Amino acid sequence: MNNATTETKLSIFALGGVQEIGKNMYVVQYGKDIVVVDCGSKFPDESLLGIDLIVPDITYLIENKDKVRGLVITHGHEDHIGGIPYILKQLNMPIYATRLTLGLIEGKLKEHGLLGNTRRIQIDSNSILSLGAMTLSFYKTNHSIPDCLGIVFDTPEGTVVHTGDFKFDLTPVNGQYADMHKMAEIGSRGVLALLSESTNAERPGFTPSERIVGESIEEAFVKAQQKVFIATFASNVHRLQQVIDAAHKTRRKLALLGRSMLNVITIASELGYLNVPDGIIIEPGDINRLQPHQVAILCTGSQGEPMAALSRLARSNYRQVTIDAGDTVILSATPIPGNERNVARTVDNLYQLGAKVIYGSGSTTGMHVSGHGSQEELKLMLTLMKPKYFIPIHGEYRMLYQHGLLAQSVGVEADDIFIVNNGEVVDIVDGAARKGRRVAAGSTLVDGLGIGDVGNIVLRDRKLLSEDGLLIVVLTLSKIDGKVLSGPDLISRGFVYVRESEGLLEEANRIALNTISNFKTENVNANQWNVLKTAMKEAIGQFLYTQTKRRPMILPIIMEV
Amino acid sequence: MNNATTETKLSIFALGGVQEIGKNMYVVQYGKDIVVVDCGSKFPDESLLGIDLIVPDITYLIENKDKVRGLVITHGHEDHIGGIPYILKQLNMPIYATRLTLGLIEGKLKEHGLLGNTRRIQIDSNSILSLGAMTLSFYKTNHSIPDCLGIVFDTPEGTVVHTGDFKFDLTPVNGQYADMHKMAEIGSRGVLALLSESTNAERPGFTPSERIVGESIEEAFVKAQQKVFIATFASNVHRLQQVIDAAHKTRRKLALLGRSMLNVITIASELGYLNVPDGIIIEPGDINRLQPHQVAILCTGSQGEPMAALSRLARSNYRQVTIDAGDTVILSATPIPGNERNVARTVDNLYQLGAKVIYGSGSTTGMHVSGHGSQEELKLMLTLMKPKYFIPIHGEYRMLYQHGLLAQSVGVEADDIFIVNNGEVVDIVDGAARKGRRVAAGSTLVDGLGIGDVGNIVLRDRKLLSEDGLLIVVLTLSKIDGKVLSGPDLISRGFVYVRESEGLLEEANRIALNTISNFKTENVNANQWNVLKTAMKEAIGQFLYTQTKRRPMILPIIMEV
Repeated sequence: MNNATTETKLSIFALGGVQEIGKNMYVVQYGKDIVVVDCGSKFPDESLLGIDLIVPDITYLIENKDKVRGLVITHGHEDHIGGIPYILKQLNMPIYATRLTLGLIEGKLKEHGLLGNTRRIQIDSNSILSLGAMTLSFYKTNHSIPDCLGIVFDTPEGTVVHTGDFKFDLTPVNGQYADMHKMAEIGSRGVLALLSESTNAERPGFTPSERIVGESIEEAFVKAQQKVFIATFASNVHRLQQVIDAAHKTRRKLALLGRSMLNVITIASELGYLNVPDGIIIEPGDINRLQPHQVAILCTGSQGEPMAALSRLARSNYRQVTIDAGDTVILSATPIPGNERNVARTVDNLYQLGAKVIYGSGSTTGMHVSGHGSQEELKLMLTLMKPKYFIPIHGEYRMLYQHGLLAQSVGVEADDIFIVNNGEVVDIVDGAARKGRRVAAGSTLVDGLGIGDVGNIVLRDRKLLSEDGLLIVVLTLSKIDGKVLSGPDLISRGFVYVRESEGLLEEANRIALNTISNFKTENVNANQWNVLKTAMKEAIGQFLYTQTKRRPMILPIIMEV
Repeated sequence: MNNATTETKLSIFALGGVQEIGKNMYVVQYGKDIVVVDCGSKFPDESLLGIDLIVPDITYLIENKDKVRGLVITHGHEDHIGGIPYILKQLNMPIYATRLTLGLIEGKLKEHGLLGNTRRIQIDSNSILSLGAMTLSFYKTNHSIPDCLGIVFDTPEGTVVHTGDFKFDLTPVNGQYADMHKMAEIGSRGVLALLSESTNAERPGFTPSERIVGESIEEAFVKAQQKVFIATFASNVHRLQQVIDAAHKTRRKLALLGRSMLNVITIASELGYLNVPDGIIIEPGDINRLQPHQVAILCTGSQGEPMAALSRLARSNYRQVTIDAGDTVILSATPIPGNERNVARTVDNLYQLGAKVIYGSGSTTGMHVSGHGSQEELKLMLTLMKPKYFIPIHGEYRMLYQHGLLAQSVGVEADDIFIVNNGEVVDIVDGAARKGRRVAAGSTLVDGLGIGDVGNIVLRDRKLLSEDGLLIVVLTLSKIDGKVLSGPDLISRGFVYVRESEGLLEEANRIALNTISNFKTENVNANQWNVLKTAMKEAIGQFLYTQTKRRPMILPIIMEV
């Protein structure tokens, strides 16, 4: 990397969020100044056994920490703020965010004991930030949470725009309109590079307004003759408002179930982003004091998460609250890919309780719309911004690819579209953009208190252990003459029932003994013990595979006394 | 259970297939005669770590083996025949099935060395079987594989009909029409109880004819200027025929990839169920000898299964065959719930290779229709059969429930609809049906060569091991004075990197030693060793949890010499 060049060029790249859904983190660097956008987390897929959370790998930022001017957050969703506490433990940065976003971040910082030593700067869509050689301004967007920003970077090389997450909701629930005119002005002034989100790039048309969901919810609340349960994302603050409104209009009291639901409603209402009529919220313990038709319950678990409120209610495993035959249950969300089975299981359980269940895709039930713009909205953004260069972000490869096609359809040149992977840098020098350079990027795995301490070997072992369990062969040898003093003892876990497999284990034991007696055990050193262990692993492993077609992890342990 | 009653009553129950998708097995018993319908398998979900396959628990059949008159198979799909080899190893039964179905079953029997000692009786839709007190006749249905049957049981108590899997395809690909008139006749004669499949009970409307998919495939084959890859279920024989036809019409040679694809095409074409033009099939190795526009490739992997042909092709990891930029790839299937992520990953990989990918729901692409009837077809079947009692089968609870609502909408009394679980018996005596009795039913887990030998303890251990790994604490004590002669040694797998966690493990070691020294080790017996082990587990477990928030399995091993 040529340092002289670095000083004068504009570089744009993702440390998370492209070719994946989640853990968004983007970097705009001009020379010696780095601005980081968002710091999200994502949940592990089934291959990352035992992992709790994934956050971006920020090696690049740590190596360039003297250049980092700050972390600017577009909005308060987990895939944009969930990584903050884990990342700040590695690299402290000042955080710039709007009021609600900051409120949600501060909750996390408090939990991790980081509130005291983190600089936090509240901004709004009219703020102007001077961060090194770059000047940042903002515009309001519509999304499923209030207080969302798009970011405009004015750099000596030209203007870079990062859309954040957005849809164009022309009848927004909170009356906060997106800054369409500002976007048009930005486009008129000239945009060098646009980074735009791609979540719904595969979806034709225009995403409906959040407002229509409110109408469906109210209708269902009116129709229901008993209790109504409604599950949605706690992070969808507009949805929460519409549930509160529907309860108010239909004179139902509202109980809240689920930790994240309570957390978001507390923060959002304290900060004035939720309008909660006095006395409408009741404690779960008070539900049974009212008539069923006087109660609604707003809860977590719309994705069938096994430990969330709705899943536990559906299994009749929630303290104080029951779903009774005739109650109505609304799933106000569409399953995220990967969650279909859990959602289906929850629906099955609800039907078994005799509940009336409203589930399925939002377009059928009217109970959910996306917070992300569909193809026509993505084209609208591209048309407003008229960028020279386009970098689709926030999506899996196929979404970025489809977004690239949309950009071409509204006039962006194919050569000016950069579909990148995390860590792939787009450098712009003298108006010319090129891709090719790479910086360190990847996943940092969070497991319990460990951040990044679980790697491939640990995961490989967990995978092996999860499939066929393990067999431990332990024995004590004499240091003096190499005689077996105790064992071999065989201990198995996750492989076979010992009681039903005595013959199998006896034979494995005999094989272990044979391996030892074929081995010259006098005056051996540690290295030679390894040879014996390997021989034992192979002999026993082969025997067990022939007998069972399973491959447990075999762990020979040799003690010397 | 009252034996006198058993002798005279009609009993209907499932040993698999209700409140689940897969491992179908239904039982119709009249007195001393049992007829078993289908013997399917299903794949484990993510909670059954290391399990290969699930088949029905047939304890009831084994306990009543002198009564079992035979196993009648409705059609040759895995969820109806996949369990046969595993079940026959426990209980041999004569198998009744149509020609194609029998061909597919025989492949399985051969593989498991069961062909010689299994009685197989080929039937067709005109067969009449006298099995004890019951007379079985059949009718043809449409489904995604030829040679499907519905079964009519004439019993002294009345007529029971089992639909098998069906849709009403009025323009079937193979010209084999469903026996609509026969179904009407059966209904006219009077049906006491109907068992009808519920797969698409949640789906409104009428499932389109398979024929429309053929048109879409042919169109795509014409449009494609290079190679075309098309992935579908090997078991969808009509689809395979349409791919062969499209290749033939567009003068492309056809290569077959994937073991099950080769297997089904070989059997179905040998038996005359597939019309394969001479010379159209080429070996994969010959693909590159032809021009790209002269080739189509029919392969497995439509569900994104990581080891199937399409997924490996998408990862550029298939011997002899490559997907090149500009090639067309068609996913001729809709993801089964739970497979969405794998399918999406495959599509991403295909786009990265520069392929044109046709994917998404069949209703959008025209590349897939279901083999199962939708709500209007289910109502049509109910209307034709006019049953007194209705038992929805073949589906998860919500599907059975919706199917029940459909039955009510066409006039079946709510009280005459029985939504059952596996093992819940519907007894019909003197025309009156009641539910209440239970027989043994459940899942038998297949893991390698073991059938049913992996149970809850083994699975629980695999789960524990998969999440936080394990820590072994091993030490040798003197039999004489209880002194520690060797160790404690700590061995960890799947927990932490030893190299990065020396401090942690040293401290754990010290805790192990402390636990021992607090323990009176002279003249202890095995029981007391357990007390020491438990104390060690607790002390180390607590320490590690405080330090890491992880809970590895802790295995103390004490050797005595």
